[in-house]
Amino acid sequence: MNLPQGYAYSAVYAGIRQTERDDLALIVSGLPANAAAVFTRNRVQAAPVRLCRRHLAQSKGQVGAILINAGNANCATRNGDAVALGTARETARMLKLPVAQVLTASTGVIGVELDGGKITAALPRLVNGLSPDRFEDAARAIMTTDLVMKTAAAEARLKHGAVCVAGMTKGSGMIHPNMATTLGFVLTDAQLPAATLRAILKRAVESSYNRLSVDGDTSTNDTLLLLANGASGVRPETREIPRVEERIAAVCQQLARSIARDGEGAKKFVTIEVSGAPNDNAAARLARTIANSPLVKTAIAGSDPNWGRILSAAGNAGVVFDPAKTDIRMQGVVVCRGGLATPFSETELKEKLDAPEVHIRFSLRGKSKGEARFWTCDLTHGYIDINASYRT
Amino acid sequence: MNLPQGYAYSAVYAGIRQTERDDLALIVSGLPANAAAVFTRNRVQAAPVRLCRRHLAQSKGQVGAILINAGNANCATRNGDAVALGTARETARMLKLPVAQVLTASTGVIGVELDGGKITAALPRLVNGLSPDRFEDAARAIMTTDLVMKTAAAEARLKHGAVCVAGMTKGSGMIHPNMATTLGFVLTDAQLPAATLRAILKRAVESSYNRLSVDGDTSTNDTLLLLANGASGVRPETREIPRVEERIAAVCQQLARSIARDGEGAKKFVTIEVSGAPNDNAAARLARTIANSPLVKTAIAGSDPNWGRILSAAGNAGVVFDPAKTDIRMQGVVVCRGGLATPFSETELKEKLDAPEVHIRFSLRGKSKGEARFWTCDLTHGYIDINASYRT
Repeated sequence: MNLPQGYAYSAVYAGIRQTERDDLALIVSGLPANAAAVFTRNRVQAAPVRLCRRHLAQSKGQVGAILINAGNANCATRNGDAVALGTARETARMLKLPVAQVLTASTGVIGVELDGGKITAALPRLVNGLSPDRFEDAARAIMTTDLVMKTAAAEARLKHGAVCVAGMTKGSGMIHPNMATTLGFVLTDAQLPAATLRAILKRAVESSYNRLSVDGDTSTNDTLLLLANGASGVRPETREIPRVEERIAAVCQQLARSIARDGEGAKKFVTIEVSGAPNDNAAARLARTIANSPLVKTAIAGSDPNWGRILSAAGNAGVVFDPAKTDIRMQGVVVCRGGLATPFSETELKEKLDAPEVHIRFSLRGKSKGEARFWTCDLTHGYIDINASYRT
Repeated sequence: MNLPQGYAYSAVYAGIRQTERDDLALIVSGLPANAAAVFTRNRVQAAPVRLCRRHLAQSKGQVGAILINAGNANCATRNGDAVALGTARETARMLKLPVAQVLTASTGVIGVELDGGKITAALPRLVNGLSPDRFEDAARAIMTTDLVMKTAAAEARLKHGAVCVAGMTKGSGMIHPNMATTLGFVLTDAQLPAATLRAILKRAVESSYNRLSVDGDTSTNDTLLLLANGASGVRPETREIPRVEERIAAVCQQLARSIARDGEGAKKFVTIEVSGAPNDNAAARLARTIANSPLVKTAIAGSDPNWGRILSAAGNAGVVFDPAKTDIRMQGVVVCRGGLATPFSETELKEKLDAPEVHIRFSLRGKSKGEARFWTCDLTHGYIDINASYRT
């Protein structure tokens, strides 16, 4: 995987999580990068989210470093703002950056005080360890209940040279669309003005993180940052911008899919495609309601071709549609035609549903062209095992 | 339990479900009863729901009999309307009622054709078995994944005599507020005009079935019927109506609570109380979002005092509130004060959370008085076991 130029990464164990596994990561851009960001829409926002908003406003979207910790969300904590600012300051001092160019992000348990001392004590080791080759170390350090590291990369060859995009993300529960779900950091070495970057990120999120649902819950810390440091020396021409955007969106989509694939306890990755809705928004609402239905998700866990639950879930989306003009396919097999049962081999379909990838297609007949693709996972015992004892 | 006068009940096994257990029930009122109804708001509505709406309009809200089957929802079925109407007709013929005074209700799997022949073949036995004493037989026949029969009764002693209210309900999954969740039949022998009855039911549902959530899913068949046949000969005076309403609401609340208590796989009954919200609606939204959060529900299953999830879920309710003015209590223990952690004995609280009844109080400080009470259950392996193989 070709990483973008001009970034360095590091990770250490700072003692924030109970098990000895890296829990503090640093991403540094040698040149100040233009940045765009999306944050959780939760009414309760963690201290690092507040710090990011403030610093991005102060720095006019210029970012030099991102300090990320796992094991503690620094949310609903008495000293939250002080810890976020204090650790950002110390990082800025060591990296000789204006403090407003340092962002922080946290993930983990809510409502437990985060010991800033552990972070500042670990900072010298963290900064010492910075290297352009430690991208994956950082990606591993931000994991919480994630079973696999989540990274993606892409490259665009433009007239004046190649630009690279690479991203890392974490998250496998508390994942819901409509927000800048989870932590995600997408970096490129293209030269892109801040306004362009913001427009690109907004659209990329819509087709990636906002099309993803694990359990319908939304964290207080969700943060997605897109940095462009221009270190490639390549400034895409106006007509090339869509190609760069396409690569950034592809990275975001791959990251989002990897979250659904690693959904807590998930055994199956589920793609839901809706077509023929009044518009794309309505299609997304239908897809999201199907994706969030515990009845649909448990049926998939049990390889049960219970399409009635899909139809019923869609009926709760708040979208006007005619059930009599609805077709449903599971794994390519038509299970419902015109809102009615249609003959299919239950045994064969059950076998097909045992596959690790499940595909549901919900099509509305007619002239409307609204469509959406959504990703989720099945709901299994594993989800409950993980979440019944996350804190204790 | 004193049952209302003038009603008779019956139940038989008609062969709709695979296991030999009564699956067809009949409720008959000797006098034509005034009726009020609430139905699912799902866009996909089962044939019996359509029949109920049509018949209630035709009969101007007069009901003589309700025919209920379990084992098949008669939804998304080719012959659905014909079966609903055909079985209602045959029932009307045997009971010598106008067909518009016969309602039907169905519950069970969606998208499988319901064999009307089985029902009409069983009707003579069903009608023969009618008795004022078979209330519980009917209540048992309408159960699907329910583990316990769900009934409730109340009595009001008025100036001119006593009136009785009794109700039966079924449901333990696919339960969600905002709709006339599940099947429910509430009967009274009071003389109540149709308009009064409708107003009473609307308010009673708001404080009962609409305050209940098992899994956030909503059935295509949800139906709640309230019948008043006047067989007590007692016409409540205007000033007595609130007392009658209070009894009807109490029966509805007891029925709704019994559904949450019997939630699929549930080990714990959870009450969520919200106070200090901008208004009652906002309070209900906060309570509902907490009640629907899989992360909250799994934490309760694991007796994990993870209040951060409660605060985070509330943050997603779309209600404006100040986390810094939020207090959270679990089992009476303050776990969060002013949006922050507050010391409590984790061991002791864990033990308290092992109880079969869990109480969460979410209070917002300030002058607002909006409040709501909500019922739900924990999310356990059992829910998944039941729903991964419901159909097969």
